Amino acid sequence: MTIKVGLLGLGTVGTGTAKILLDPAERHPLVKAVEVYRVGVRSLDKTRAVEISPDRLTTDLESIVTDPDVDVVVEVMGGLEPARSLILKAIHSGKHVVTANKAVIARYGDDIFTAANEAGVYVLLEAAVGGGIPVIQPLKQALGVNRIHAVTGIVNGTTNYILTRMQREGGDFEPILADAQRLGYAEADPSADIDGLDAADKIAILASLAFGGRIKLSEVYSEGIRHVSAADIAYADRLGFVIKLLAIARRDTCPVSNEVLDQLQLRVHPTLVPKAHPLASVNDVYNAILVEGDPIGQVMFFGPGAGEGPTASAVVSDVLNIAATLQSQNAVAGSSQNPLMACTHQHYCKVSPMADIVSRFYVRLLARDQPGVIGKIGLCFGQHDVSIESVVQIDMRGVVAEIVVVTHEVREANLQTALDELREYTEIQGVPSVLRVL
Amino acid sequence: MTIKVGLLGLGTVGTGTAKILLDPAERHPLVKAVEVYRVGVRSLDKTRAVEISPDRLTTDLESIVTDPDVDVVVEVMGGLEPARSLILKAIHSGKHVVTANKAVIARYGDDIFTAANEAGVYVLLEAAVGGGIPVIQPLKQALGVNRIHAVTGIVNGTTNYILTRMQREGGDFEPILADAQRLGYAEADPSADIDGLDAADKIAILASLAFGGRIKLSEVYSEGIRHVSAADIAYADRLGFVIKLLAIARRDTCPVSNEVLDQLQLRVHPTLVPKAHPLASVNDVYNAILVEGDPIGQVMFFGPGAGEGPTASAVVSDVLNIAATLQSQNAVAGSSQNPLMACTHQHYCKVSPMADIVSRFYVRLLARDQPGVIGKIGLCFGQHDVSIESVVQIDMRGVVAEIVVVTHEVREANLQTALDELREYTEIQGVPSVLRVL
Repeated sequence: MTIKVGLLGLGTVGTGTAKILLDPAERHPLVKAVEVYRVGVRSLDKTRAVEISPDRLTTDLESIVTDPDVDVVVEVMGGLEPARSLILKAIHSGKHVVTANKAVIARYGDDIFTAANEAGVYVLLEAAVGGGIPVIQPLKQALGVNRIHAVTGIVNGTTNYILTRMQREGGDFEPILADAQRLGYAEADPSADIDGLDAADKIAILASLAFGGRIKLSEVYSEGIRHVSAADIAYADRLGFVIKLLAIARRDTCPVSNEVLDQLQLRVHPTLVPKAHPLASVNDVYNAILVEGDPIGQVMFFGPGAGEGPTASAVVSDVLNIAATLQSQNAVAGSSQNPLMACTHQHYCKVSPMADIVSRFYVRLLARDQPGVIGKIGLCFGQHDVSIESVVQIDMRGVVAEIVVVTHEVREANLQTALDELREYTEIQGVPSVLRVL
Repeated sequence: MTIKVGLLGLGTVGTGTAKILLDPAERHPLVKAVEVYRVGVRSLDKTRAVEISPDRLTTDLESIVTDPDVDVVVEVMGGLEPARSLILKAIHSGKHVVTANKAVIARYGDDIFTAANEAGVYVLLEAAVGGGIPVIQPLKQALGVNRIHAVTGIVNGTTNYILTRMQREGGDFEPILADAQRLGYAEADPSADIDGLDAADKIAILASLAFGGRIKLSEVYSEGIRHVSAADIAYADRLGFVIKLLAIARRDTCPVSNEVLDQLQLRVHPTLVPKAHPLASVNDVYNAILVEGDPIGQVMFFGPGAGEGPTASAVVSDVLNIAATLQSQNAVAGSSQNPLMACTHQHYCKVSPMADIVSRFYVRLLARDQPGVIGKIGLCFGQHDVSIESVVQIDMRGVVAEIVVVTHEVREANLQTALDELREYTEIQGVPSVLRVL
């Protein structure tokens, strides 16, 4: 039984996908049963890095998603439209769908999975998060027996590359971003990566799987790395931390009773990570996802978060998963969806407002170098229930002292109120950095 | 549709398994569909950490594996017999089997999978390697589309704990082993762990999955950590390495043409790992498995390699996988095995003899402190095509010099011949350590 794939897009990931499927030797035997049946492209004339017979190519993508012979539609074109419409049309035509499109799934996952459940087809998306790292399937299957407490990831390679270089070289953000763009590690318009939006898409998807509910992307707090300075990285280093852009989904607990609440923390922000933490040594463009649950404890998945080969590996693994299911069910009447592959939850997860989230904080202040200034800072924090772990006056710039405060766990709203008050003090010249500490 | 589990064994892992199944809230909804139907134990009178109705307990384990109402037999009793016989009898009775028993699978996997394929049942074993870390299923599924080049693992928690402490404390093997035994991290008879036999079982299983062929356990080279000394760890540290017990399965390549051969390297031995390597920072009882393949590059799985909760998580995830398949097939006629869950390969992998394996080596020699001794060592190595990367005379013990040699990649047989010759030299007092370098 051959499984016929309709491939939408023959860019980087599409090319990688076709390469694997057209060269099945030494791979799982099932790869041989998958045929690249039709390929949708923007232009028929372009030279390709992979050999596809011209009669399989078309610019009419809609004809692929409605082709009665196509079993699985693989969407690797990216972008919101027409990707979203084509995915929905494929589902309505009874096709299974494999997609690498985190942006579409994070925004329109509810429509897509509702349609897929009605049509009785699978929508798989291993490639949407963590490139080649198998994390979606383990979350849906192997880890599903756990009560998940938290999913914490370094899920954006561009920002991790920039932060790693800032750490190693002691350099500032702007020149390293420019160099990353020159080297192809950052896009010409880098905002989706740099501002944490790509990571927000991905943590929304991971949270939905880990906690079995839908997520409104607008409820994911997202803060990028533009404001992380070489000074912060150096101070964090002295204090025993590295700074990473973390995407965090965590079942919230009551700060008083420690009781687990039925709501989630969903946030992306630069974070001080203790050097001994497993995520601290994930460098360069690598991604890693740490899953914490009961009874498993901590499990981490590490690997290349992007790139033609890794992403294509994830895409084809999804295709194989569908092929295996179709083969074993042998298209017999009475067979139904595999509950570990389908997406069945329909309710929306409740998300905690950032103001209520309890975290440790790193704050860098500039103050006039006057006697008693640290005392005044301490008093102000104390009045707002912000308990301080350490205060270090680290550097002098003429008459200005640089003061780094690390707090104990405090409610974010309290910290912000204290900082607003501090900013009014004549002794305080500015608060250049406020970062969360893991 | 309820899936009825017959649990063989209610020790650590069995108890953990029952705990998850009896407390399904906030886990995957499918956990609710699994019933702990019968439990086989050694004694009916023992107090249990988990509440199981007495009428479900029996000491007659055979009655469980032949019970017509049992769908899945979960073997978590450990040991070779009666585990092996009960697994085979369960298969012959048409039961699916989930096992955590690496020793049985590594030795009798061929009989067991042949029987399972004939009976059309699944035998799943996620818990057999890496405790709670999902690695078996990703190897069979998500990574199966890759051409796997190598699987390299820290798969034994006891030895990793001992080596980590030796590294941190600068201590010697024997006292730290004794302390590990006191703390419950090593068994009273520690030889299966310490001599690398447990790791050999596990790499045999991983290799079989990664390379799609059966493995004869006797062909896995296995060398333990008894001879690793505090001195070696200290010298390795100065040279930029940590020493880890690695289990390695690698598609062998021709040292001359670099062509990939149809044979595997299968070996367990203490190894100098560069500090920047992802496996170098896997410490204490944690396990990690690094998979390298085309086109994915490197992917690593990290987590707790043992313990009640993690291992039970893996066991129950296998049960759920079977439950999901049974539910979706709805027991309809005409459905067949899922090729990603079944084990279909029947041929045996060819294994390279250790003498032919090409590796870098670390050699520690004791020599009389005489002029020209390093020259004589260098000449001897050179005569046997052993190319030297560095020679350091590190320490003096009276008139004895301690010399550490790190070689380039050399054929193991050549190195051993050179060392045999060196041992005859009057200047050489001994060769206390020969370790491989990753």
